[in-house]
Amino acid sequence: MADIQNGDSCSSSPLELFERVTAQGEKVRSLKAGKASTEEIDAAVKLLLSLKVTYKTATGQDYKAGSPPVDFSPVSNNGPITTQDEDFVDPWTVQTSNAKGVDYDKLIVRFGSSKIDKELINRIERVTGKTPHRFLRRGIFFSHRDMNQILDAYENKKPFYLYTGRGPSSEAMHVGHLIPFIFTKWLQEIFNVPLVIQLTDDEKYLWKDLTIERAYEYAIENAKDIIACGFDINKTFIFSDLDYLGMSSGYYKNVVKVQKHVTFNQVKGIFGFTDSDCIGKISFPAIQAAPSFSSSFPQIFKDKKDIQCLIPCAIDQDPYFRMTRDVAPRIGYLKPALLHSVFFPALQGAQTKMSASDPNTSIFLTDTPKQIKTKINKHAFSGGKDTIEEHRKYGGNCEVDVSYMYLTFFLEDDDKLEQMKQAYTSGALLTGELKKVLIETLQPLIAAHQQRRKQITDEMVKQFMTPRKLAFDF
Amino acid sequence: MADIQNGDSCSSSPLELFERVTAQGEKVRSLKAGKASTEEIDAAVKLLLSLKVTYKTATGQDYKAGSPPVDFSPVSNNGPITTQDEDFVDPWTVQTSNAKGVDYDKLIVRFGSSKIDKELINRIERVTGKTPHRFLRRGIFFSHRDMNQILDAYENKKPFYLYTGRGPSSEAMHVGHLIPFIFTKWLQEIFNVPLVIQLTDDEKYLWKDLTIERAYEYAIENAKDIIACGFDINKTFIFSDLDYLGMSSGYYKNVVKVQKHVTFNQVKGIFGFTDSDCIGKISFPAIQAAPSFSSSFPQIFKDKKDIQCLIPCAIDQDPYFRMTRDVAPRIGYLKPALLHSVFFPALQGAQTKMSASDPNTSIFLTDTPKQIKTKINKHAFSGGKDTIEEHRKYGGNCEVDVSYMYLTFFLEDDDKLEQMKQAYTSGALLTGELKKVLIETLQPLIAAHQQRRKQITDEMVKQFMTPRKLAFDF
Repeated sequence: MADIQNGDSCSSSPLELFERVTAQGEKVRSLKAGKASTEEIDAAVKLLLSLKVTYKTATGQDYKAGSPPVDFSPVSNNGPITTQDEDFVDPWTVQTSNAKGVDYDKLIVRFGSSKIDKELINRIERVTGKTPHRFLRRGIFFSHRDMNQILDAYENKKPFYLYTGRGPSSEAMHVGHLIPFIFTKWLQEIFNVPLVIQLTDDEKYLWKDLTIERAYEYAIENAKDIIACGFDINKTFIFSDLDYLGMSSGYYKNVVKVQKHVTFNQVKGIFGFTDSDCIGKISFPAIQAAPSFSSSFPQIFKDKKDIQCLIPCAIDQDPYFRMTRDVAPRIGYLKPALLHSVFFPALQGAQTKMSASDPNTSIFLTDTPKQIKTKINKHAFSGGKDTIEEHRKYGGNCEVDVSYMYLTFFLEDDDKLEQMKQAYTSGALLTGELKKVLIETLQPLIAAHQQRRKQITDEMVKQFMTPRKLAFDF
Repeated sequence: MADIQNGDSCSSSPLELFERVTAQGEKVRSLKAGKASTEEIDAAVKLLLSLKVTYKTATGQDYKAGSPPVDFSPVSNNGPITTQDEDFVDPWTVQTSNAKGVDYDKLIVRFGSSKIDKELINRIERVTGKTPHRFLRRGIFFSHRDMNQILDAYENKKPFYLYTGRGPSSEAMHVGHLIPFIFTKWLQEIFNVPLVIQLTDDEKYLWKDLTIERAYEYAIENAKDIIACGFDINKTFIFSDLDYLGMSSGYYKNVVKVQKHVTFNQVKGIFGFTDSDCIGKISFPAIQAAPSFSSSFPQIFKDKKDIQCLIPCAIDQDPYFRMTRDVAPRIGYLKPALLHSVFFPALQGAQTKMSASDPNTSIFLTDTPKQIKTKINKHAFSGGKDTIEEHRKYGGNCEVDVSYMYLTFFLEDDDKLEQMKQAYTSGALLTGELKKVLIETLQPLIAAHQQRRKQITDEMVKQFMTPRKLAFDF
């Protein structure tokens, strides 16, 4: 079927059609229940049938009550839709039974996004004159929506901006949490564009057993780790939802605009909400959607409503932005473009996302060199063989080896990585030796992060989080 | 059954119990569907049954799936619950088949509020030393929640504040819209307390076919009519939701707190929302709830979270505040107290509320003396007899006569009103003569309003709507 997500402004989106069929169905039922005249019922049924035909033409799918168009919605009303190999991905849960991790090619098909292929990577290099980031070279950012539009804009000297974020569920961040920020920092540098970073403390308050005050504290602590990634204070605005919603003349207006154009049926389909969920959760997707529109930041973009947004994020956040892209043309805004990353594997293996609540699944940004060493040696899942003899004979399996996977994220040197892959696969390199390389890569990286974080004062956090003009003219 | 709404802080409200039974029911169903072990299912069923007993003990009602506790919820999931005589009241629709209007005594029983009786009116007079307002003397404000708490507070010199509001659905306001403001102004004068006035332009944007900009314009225009009622600029803060949410460090936080503690099931039960409603409508009740808490206005109350709120409003707004009162103790806040008014009848009769969209159902604040005269003579429903002879013989019926009803709202002189009632009932006073009295009462009243409104500058509106300290110390 046509890629509805990448289509231009459409007066009737599949979801709107779905809603219209549903509403007409309800009308027919109420006419019948109300014992309306045969003519009235017949006319209503006729309209219902014709709407169903329109729906099928537009979506290639039969209308099914309670199931919004599939391409728009990764989860059905009855719970998750899983691919044949049982991967499950939504903003709160990522699960796969495969030791290699989620099947990302299948996810691209299911989510209706596009693969970041060699051609796109080459174009990024050509347009910016910079070597593509290792996350691009190694398929860590693997999927996109409308990235070519962004490159067109850049070539035509049309401005755009970056938007990413984090849900501050605890004080502690682990190395996996750095991925979107490392990449976003690189994007900001090569494109030289404004960046807004959302801390969804309101979301964490709604979803977790936290007070508002605690959620906000976590946001501030997380902001320090984010700033320590090296963002340019003149080009970056970091905001807590709880704070910024009460400080912006544009944000709430955009939230309400989104909220007017998304029904409960839709968020039920997209996020799996139920009637027992609180109304805060049900309306939250609009809060994550609104920063995709430049008018949410009048202090940066003045009255400009047409500055396009590029969102680098992990693929599990895509449901929010599929919804945003569906709504955008209906409220007169541009659809945000997206760059999706894979998930960072837990030490125990790629079957699950790392968890900030289990210290042994992750390397935390607060870990000491000794903790890093112990965790990797003790917990990093090995693709090596059980004995040295067998390993020398049969070699290790990089596809499931967590130490090797981590090196693909953090070791910059392509040649060295390739050498190790060959040596490990052949059996020349032992698991302990591979782990040693990872330990020696992560220890200085995390020590340097801790060093930078120590320099971050409350005053700097306050500056980053103050709504203000950035170093760009709009 | 016990008045659950007026009870103190309760760890398990009827609604919470309802939710728990519902959730446990869902668990039992999913265990059965998932083919869980017999022991597991039995244990879950046992808990379900015991929860149902607790629910019945607490509410006096049997648990019924999909129907939240009746005292809390005027409408069921299947639509309105109407009393035997078919009155229907919710924030968007008021209907009755009775020419005398809604049966307010029944509404008090159904909503679980308390009647404003002679004793309470006497206490207000005793405590304030002021003659009770004609709206109290004549039962126009007829119902309350916790007004005695407010009077206790006043006697003990404990501060409280007033909160009322308006949904700016158009530029045009009619005389009926003045009722809560006339009364609120009187309350502010006799108690000398801060007042906040909410203009729900976000609500009107969500419910109507309006742009955000237009809804905001209506809010500003309506603010002028409200200011023209004579509110003290040093004691009154007027706010548009679309504006103030982006200007307050306290408002959004309270909105999210309420949103965390109200489920879709609950708003479905209270307001009749469906799955096809947009998520903006579904979460809106929290926006109307939050100004009931003093911490939504830090510029007025500083960090004080325990200043009680008194809300004068028409009875159709009560569902919002029943919800608010249910949530308040669970988020550590005081329940707001309420004073409820009857509806202002349409010129055509008390069966419906006046409509701002039909010019002939109402006297507008912009009407000329001539328009007022024509509308009343032509459209005001008469309780008189068809011929002068019959009228002289049998007399008129004040209970259904709209001109007489209007006079109860606007004629201050009790003796004159009583004389007219007797003369009309006896037949001595003709319909035309009664209408003449009303015309002569409304013409100067509206002319004076127009005169005052003309004096309202944009600068004054801006001042009233600027978040600021009022003339009270907290």
